[in-house]
Amino acid sequence: MSKKRSNGKKNSAQVAIVMGSDTDLKTMQEAADVLGEFGISYDVQVISAHRTPEEMADFAKSASESGYSVIIAGAGGAAHLPGMIASLTELPVIGVPVPVGALQGQDALFSIVQMPKGVPVATVAIGNAYNAGLLAAQILGVSDLKIRSAIAKYKNGLKEKVRGMQRRLEAAR
Amino acid sequence: MSKKRSNGKKNSAQVAIVMGSDTDLKTMQEAADVLGEFGISYDVQVISAHRTPEEMADFAKSASESGYSVIIAGAGGAAHLPGMIASLTELPVIGVPVPVGALQGQDALFSIVQMPKGVPVATVAIGNAYNAGLLAAQILGVSDLKIRSAIAKYKNGLKEKVRGMQRRLEAAR
Amino acid sequence: MSKKRSNGKKNSAQVAIVMGSDTDLKTMQEAADVLGEFGISYDVQVISAHRTPEEMADFAKSASESGYSVIIAGAGGAAHLPGMIASLTELPVIGVPVPVGALQGQDALFSIVQMPKGVPVATVAIGNAYNAGLLAAQILGVSDLKIRSAIAKYKNGLKEKVRGMQRRLEAAR
Amino acid sequence: MSKKRSNGKKNSAQVAIVMGSDTDLKTMQEAADVLGEFGISYDVQVISAHRTPEEMADFAKSASESGYSVIIAGAGGAAHLPGMIASLTELPVIGVPVPVGALQGQDALFSIVQMPKGVPVATVAIGNAYNAGLLAAQILGVSDLKIRSAIAKYKNGLKEKVRGMQRRLEAAR
Amino acid sequence: MSKKRSNGKKNSAQVAIVMGSDTDLKTMQEAADVLGEFGISYDVQVISAHRTPEEMADFAKSASESGYSVIIAGAGGAAHLPGMIASLTELPVIGVPVPVGALQGQDALFSIVQMPKGVPVATVAIGNAYNAGLLAAQILGVSDLKIRSAIAKYKNGLKEKVRGMQRRLEAAR
Amino acid sequence: MSKKRSNGKKNSAQVAIVMGSDTDLKTMQEAADVLGEFGISYDVQVISAHRTPEEMADFAKSASESGYSVIIAGAGGAAHLPGMIASLTELPVIGVPVPVGALQGQDALFSIVQMPKGVPVATVAIGNAYNAGLLAAQILGVSDLKIRSAIAKYKNGLKEKVRGMQRRLEAAR
Amino acid sequence: MSKKRSNGKKNSAQVAIVMGSDTDLKTMQEAADVLGEFGISYDVQVISAHRTPEEMADFAKSASESGYSVIIAGAGGAAHLPGMIASLTELPVIGVPVPVGALQGQDALFSIVQMPKGVPVATVAIGNAYNAGLLAAQILGVSDLKIRSAIAKYKNGLKEKVRGMQRRLEAAR
Amino acid sequence: MSKKRSNGKKNSAQVAIVMGSDTDLKTMQEAADVLGEFGISYDVQVISAHRTPEEMADFAKSASESGYSVIIAGAGGAAHLPGMIASLTELPVIGVPVPVGALQGQDALFSIVQMPKGVPVATVAIGNAYNAGLLAAQILGVSDLKIRSAIAKYKNGLKEKVRGMQRRLEAAR
Repeated sequence: MSKKRSNGKKNSAQVAIVMGSDTDLKTMQEAADVLGEFGISYDVQVISAHRTPEEMADFAKSASESGYSVIIAGAGGAAHLPGMIASLTELPVIGVPVPVGALQGQDALFSIVQMPKGVPVATVAIGNAYNAGLLAAQILGVSDLKIRSAIAKYKNGLKEKVRGMQRRLEAAR
Repeated sequence: MSKKRSNGKKNSAQVAIVMGSDTDLKTMQEAADVLGEFGISYDVQVISAHRTPEEMADFAKSASESGYSVIIAGAGGAAHLPGMIASLTELPVIGVPVPVGALQGQDALFSIVQMPKGVPVATVAIGNAYNAGLLAAQILGVSDLKIRSAIAKYKNGLKEKVRGMQRRLEAAR
Repeated sequence: MSKKRSNGKKNSAQVAIVMGSDTDLKTMQEAADVLGEFGISYDVQVISAHRTPEEMADFAKSASESGYSVIIAGAGGAAHLPGMIASLTELPVIGVPVPVGALQGQDALFSIVQMPKGVPVATVAIGNAYNAGLLAAQILGVSDLKIRSAIAKYKNGLKEKVRGMQRRLEAAR
Repeated sequence: MSKKRSNGKKNSAQVAIVMGSDTDLKTMQEAADVLGEFGISYDVQVISAHRTPEEMADFAKSASESGYSVIIAGAGGAAHLPGMIASLTELPVIGVPVPVGALQGQDALFSIVQMPKGVPVATVAIGNAYNAGLLAAQILGVSDLKIRSAIAKYKNGLKEKVRGMQRRLEAAR
Repeated sequence: MSKKRSNGKKNSAQVAIVMGSDTDLKTMQEAADVLGEFGISYDVQVISAHRTPEEMADFAKSASESGYSVIIAGAGGAAHLPGMIASLTELPVIGVPVPVGALQGQDALFSIVQMPKGVPVATVAIGNAYNAGLLAAQILGVSDLKIRSAIAKYKNGLKEKVRGMQRRLEAAR
Repeated sequence: MSKKRSNGKKNSAQVAIVMGSDTDLKTMQEAADVLGEFGISYDVQVISAHRTPEEMADFAKSASESGYSVIIAGAGGAAHLPGMIASLTELPVIGVPVPVGALQGQDALFSIVQMPKGVPVATVAIGNAYNAGLLAAQILGVSDLKIRSAIAKYKNGLKEKVRGMQRRLEAAR
Repeated sequence: MSKKRSNGKKNSAQVAIVMGSDTDLKTMQEAADVLGEFGISYDVQVISAHRTPEEMADFAKSASESGYSVIIAGAGGAAHLPGMIASLTELPVIGVPVPVGALQGQDALFSIVQMPKGVPVATVAIGNAYNAGLLAAQILGVSDLKIRSAIAKYKNGLKEKVRGMQRRLEAAR
Repeated sequence: MSKKRSNGKKNSAQVAIVMGSDTDLKTMQEAADVLGEFGISYDVQVISAHRTPEEMADFAKSASESGYSVIIAGAGGAAHLPGMIASLTELPVIGVPVPVGALQGQDALFSIVQMPKGVPVATVAIGNAYNAGLLAAQILGVSDLKIRSAIAKYKNGLKEKVRGMQRRLEAAR
């Protein structure tokens, strides 16, 4: 298990980032980056609903006990990983539709978001792992007020960024 | 386990028909009916990828040993059941997209058919469990020439049915 | 503001359920029902991104201070309510695409889920407010272990429900 | 605020062109170009519904008083900017779906055009900011007969352009 | 020509509402109703791009001279009426996709909104003729401040309506 | 073979109307009705690409020699009938997508229209067998000037119908 | 008017190929090539439904008298050209959806094929102008048996081409 | 006929791989590769439903007698090949939607999967010929336990591959 933690403690990553193949990593890396920016510990794991279903089940069933608080799962095509993990854990699961193949993520979006009653997956935009990381931070921020105020600060940063665009635009004209 | 067999032997149903909820039965019953017409033994079971994931895994992992030859799985919405079973068995799995909810089976079609390399699901038309039963018969007919010739006969019956339509049409005009 | 709370305290609902029109209530009521089952306090409010944009902004900007922990927002068509609230709060926002009009929620799904970087909305299936309520419970369960174990119990209940279906099916055959 | 005006007066741009990010400028520039050709004054501003919601609200609420007559708003993905501005002003708002990401503007089209009763957005084709500029000119031409006759002249120019294609085609054969 | 005018003058309806068949009237009537509420004069005419193309051309070419200021055109299926009128007039044309047939207005939406450079149609939501009427009022409000302030008042009315929903909801709980 | 002819000669129907099942007749009858109105002889036959492929092939290969001039084929779902007939005849084939099942004719439209180079099918709107009949008449009108002028007259009739709608609308207001 | 004729007579091209812009020529050229191969005379013209609507109307209304037998019209986006021409002529009109812009021809397909009762357009596959040319030949072949037998010969050529592929494939293995 | 067999016997390939054009070979080759890995004999043939319909019919009607057990058919666009072969044989037919043209395989998916009652095609993901080969192996594995256990071994290989990805990921961090 690959871990990056801000506090150095072992076995205590707050967020698990999982994906079915290392080719998904170029999409999913942004989730890790966001969490890193907020000082939230995370793991990155390759676990496949279809190729390693037992490992997937073991991971999901023990995720709560292992100390994770939130799981981020990315998948393309039939995209069963987020939903299957969600069926095996009490933790909130965030799903990222990865845009691959002929349908470019519309299949993954439907497979991830259209879950039946009793097993929600918190779905974000196609390919938008960045927002999955941020949503995980917001979920942790429900009880961790330091994270919550970091998010408030981050939102102010977004404003500044837009204002900077506007200033550059004015200057250029 | 609910079983219907033409030969009376126990533990030997050739085809397992599974679905996530008994509300899917009105769609899936036709698969059973076709198998019955061909004298092929079958089980009907309610097993949910999302709500009974462990039972689903146990069923799929032992399906080959239990003596099944083919599995038919129906599901709507995110429709993970066929693909998850396919990931856990060497047997061919036939998927039936069940038309439920706002997207009327287009979500289920994408979720069932767009499986990744290594885990095929033999997908039939939305809501067409009848064809799932027939496809199972064709698969059994690969080695069972009695079934194969029954299918040949069935196909001739299709012709007669169409010819009957044509005769009635002529008579009516 | 309409409130239902299990603990009798005022001004402390944990979850806000908002929607743009009282016609959405027949879809959104299920979110409230789930929260009620888990003993989680909630408000139900009609706030429209398009018709009462200032009230919407006031609500969203003060939601964190008001003591809410999670916001559930349902909307159909262009469906801006979840995203706009998400842009104005640090709290996690769950979006429910309400199926109305000619496109039956596919428009609302795209409008709610395809949010830009920096402003995630945790989107659930079209018309599935039930799962929005459950996801809110899971999010609260990150820090509230009583809720988390109630979810674990609920998941066992799901299993029992499926097993009951299977038993009735067996009995009927 | 970046302004280009033909008459040199301050605070009197007739059309506001707004977009959520400066990356939209390569799509939206054509709206500005058309307005420039018709001698109609305009502003170009970066304002984000999701990242600077307060500035967006301030802009929209004061747009009528500020002297604008028409607002053109471009957005991609969930594309809330045109609709949110429309909810906060009496002025006509023209929406341009910007083609970005996996769904290439189909999401933005639905998000912009499927507005609820009471808050129309005048939607043009995906990526067609040129037509947004022209539509703004036509709207101004309702009361400004100089613009209206410039549009009539422009339409004759279109004819000439097509006739020129036809002549070159004939010559080449 | 059927006319309803608030000021009794002849040949001076401000808005033309046209549609290809009287079966579209049940959708398009709402555009007329909105205009009536704002005291804006209008005509309702059945003109078909496909069945009376010459009348359509005559109408469109003379619309500006006839004294109309805005044209609202509704159409279903291939839905050429709004675009063809737009190609023959300098006036702004508002298009309403009428939901008919198997594709329920998605065809009409694409046919109306995806116009080429030089010929915009201001498209509103599928079946939402109400918003077409309101948009026409907003366009007239660019130069007619009485209409503009009536729109501002109307928008306040929307707020009151939503607040009323909220009060009834509170009372009911 | 069911035949209706205006001239009483045998073996000389000009248009063959074929469909895969008599359940398609309620859609396809309109093609027959139009041809009848134009005094064009036609056959109606039930022939299935999938259930009577040999009869289908025999029909298509001999259609030109049998004296047919145009073939109209209706089909739903995978809808192979029009394209398969087109592959086996030199005659022009008109395809009618029949709206059946969960995808309501969008599948049939794609299956009929997206034919490869070398085998065109003249596709009309979903469920619009009426237009298939009219298109057959237009094709016959290429060499039969009596039919061509009947079509011109028919088109004038369309105009009168629309004008009648307009008159009734005026009268009602 | 650009003409290519095999027989040298003036004013007698059998097929008119029209398109809205010379950028469509790279798609539409194949229609001309096919006709040339069959020795069928044709014109290629740039006529726009939206930019030269009067020329379009003049062309369509006089097409039958001018001696044309079939019209092929290509268009992208809102794609009104085929349908508008069809509304103004008794001749059969073949429509080619040209794949341009974000929706890559799906918009054009819907706009061209979904024509209302009374005005059919014989639609071919997206971007498949080749088949439009071939369909025109088949239509002319209804009365011109020389063309019809050329088509029969062409179809044999298709077979040979496929058989050649098969032989090369065998040789390569 | 091009053959590759592991056992050297003639006329005994177990699986036929067919496609309409040699341009489909770059997609379909993977089906052959998988079969080769499992030591299953196969043929690769170019047969077109639309261009060589008689050869296609001959092939399909004699496939069972010729000794084939399973047929894999790939096709793009209207994609009639799998369904037409299925209508003419008792053998199970696996369909591969080939992604070509503007709709990138969504048309082929609908054309292949939406087959009517009585004629199933076992459809796999768009462009996923690899899975078609694997599904053929699974079907043969129903009666051939050597193949079945090779599939079990293959599935373990999939697990190892995913575990390898995970190890490399850990090492890299």
